[in-house]
Amino acid sequence: MSDRIWVDGREQTMVSARDRGLQYGDGLFETMAVIDGQIRHLRYHLERLLSGCARLGIEGVDQAQMTQELVEQSRAVTRGVLKLIITRGIGARGYRPPATSEPTRIASLSDWPNHSPEWAAAGVAVRYCRTPLGENPILAGLKHLNRLEQVLARSEWSDPTIAEGLTLDGAGHIIGGTMTNVFIVQRRVLLTPRVDRCGVAGVMRRTVLEAAQRLGIEARECTLARTDIESADEVFLTNALIGIWPVRAIERRSFSLGAVARELLQAL
Amino acid sequence: MSDRIWVDGREQTMVSARDRGLQYGDGLFETMAVIDGQIRHLRYHLERLLSGCARLGIEGVDQAQMTQELVEQSRAVTRGVLKLIITRGIGARGYRPPATSEPTRIASLSDWPNHSPEWAAAGVAVRYCRTPLGENPILAGLKHLNRLEQVLARSEWSDPTIAEGLTLDGAGHIIGGTMTNVFIVQRRVLLTPRVDRCGVAGVMRRTVLEAAQRLGIEARECTLARTDIESADEVFLTNALIGIWPVRAIERRSFSLGAVARELLQAL
Repeated sequence: MSDRIWVDGREQTMVSARDRGLQYGDGLFETMAVIDGQIRHLRYHLERLLSGCARLGIEGVDQAQMTQELVEQSRAVTRGVLKLIITRGIGARGYRPPATSEPTRIASLSDWPNHSPEWAAAGVAVRYCRTPLGENPILAGLKHLNRLEQVLARSEWSDPTIAEGLTLDGAGHIIGGTMTNVFIVQRRVLLTPRVDRCGVAGVMRRTVLEAAQRLGIEARECTLARTDIESADEVFLTNALIGIWPVRAIERRSFSLGAVARELLQAL
Repeated sequence: MSDRIWVDGREQTMVSARDRGLQYGDGLFETMAVIDGQIRHLRYHLERLLSGCARLGIEGVDQAQMTQELVEQSRAVTRGVLKLIITRGIGARGYRPPATSEPTRIASLSDWPNHSPEWAAAGVAVRYCRTPLGENPILAGLKHLNRLEQVLARSEWSDPTIAEGLTLDGAGHIIGGTMTNVFIVQRRVLLTPRVDRCGVAGVMRRTVLEAAQRLGIEARECTLARTDIESADEVFLTNALIGIWPVRAIERRSFSLGAVARELLQAL
C-alpha cells in the first residue's frame, strides 16, 4: 500500500485500540479528491463533517488546525484521495460518551482508484444489491463510521465490469449506490432519493443539485421505486471522486446516455 | 485507565489505522465476565462470535488460538471484564472486503463496572430512549461494531440513578436496553423481543431462555409494544456482566419485583 497516514497531525500508522472509532464506529469521515495539490470541494466536505460532529455531539474539533493539516497533506499530490476520519476519541469501555474527550483526526492519502477510464464517458453497468439498508432518521445523511451495510452490499459482486450496486431500504425504495448517490431524469426533471431516513448526503450530490439550479433544471428530492429508475430517461451516479458516471445499464435494462448528465458534467 | 490490551495476542495498545474495524466498523465483539480466573459462558460467547463471523464473511479466525489467549488473559483476574473485538483486518480504502485478509484480535481487560450493588437485589429504574433503532435483518442479532445508535441512546441521560434506557424501533416496538436484553412476565409467561430485525442476541438472554425451559416456565420471543411492558407483572434486564436486574420503575410506572426473575436468578 502506498498510503501515507497522519494521526492527530503526526505521520504515523497506528491508533489507540481504545479509540471509540474502533470500539463503536463512533465517528465520521470524508473522502476527498485531490487534484494538482488542491482539495476539490473542501468547503462542502468540512461543512458536512462539522454538521455531522454537531449531530453526534462530537465536540472540540479545531477546524482551523484540521484544515491547515489537510491543505499541507495535499500540497505535493498531483492526483490522489485524501480520506479524513474524525472520531470521538479515546474512552473507557461502555457506550456512554465520556464527559470530556479529545477527538482523533486520522488522515490518509491513497492512490486514485483504478476505475476504467471509459466509465465517465461511455457510462457504467450497475446491479441491484440484495443487502437492505436500515432506516434511521438520526443517522441519515451522515457519512458516519457505521458502514457494515455498505461493506456487505459491496461484497455481493466481484465482476470488475459492474461499476456499482444500487441499494434499497427495507420497503424497496432506491437509496443510492454503495459509494455513490443516484439521480434519474424524467422529462428533464432531475430526481434523487431523499436522505432523511437512509443514505448519505453526498458532497457531489449537493454540487449537482446546485448546478441544476444554476442551469434552470428542475430538481427534486423524493422517494424512488425501482420502477421509477427503470422508466427513467437517464440515470447517473455521483461521488466526490468520480464526479458523474452516466449509467448505461442496470442489470438487463439499458439506458442511452443523456443530455442532462452531459450538461451538468460541463457545468461542474 | 487500568486496562490491559492485547492485539493479535501481544500486549500492546495500538492498532493499525488501516484496520477495517476502525474504517468501517467491519467486525464484531464480545463482552465477557471473568470471575475467579474463569470466563463465564465462554462457549456461548465463542459460538455467537463465530456465527457472526460466518454471517459477515470474516474468515480465518483461529478458534483454538483465540480461546487459549482468552483463557490466559483471564487466569489471574479475580473479577473483571474481558472484551474481545474481531475485525476483518487490514485492507485498502474501499468498502469491498479484500480477497484475503487476516482478522485482527483485540482483547482488553477492564475493571468490573461500578454499578450500584443494590440494583441486582432491589431492582433498577429505567427510562425510554428517544433514539430509534434502525431495522436490518442482515445485521440483526449480531454484536457488531456499528454501535452509533447505542452510543446516541446512552448519551441521552446522565442521571446515575437511571440504570438503563429502553430502545424502540421505528415502529415503536421495544427492542431492549442500550446494553441489555429485556424480558417481561405476563401471567407467568416469559416474553422477550425477537432479535431478527433489530437488537442483539445476548448470551445472558440465551442462558435465561434455556433456564426457563429447564424450570418449565413457558417462554416466547415476540413483538412487544410499550403497552405490553407497562401492563407486565414483572420486567427484568439481562446481560453477561449484570446477569439479571429486576426493573422496579420505568419512568412513572413502578413494578414489584417478581417471583419469576427470582426463580431464574437462583437457577443461573
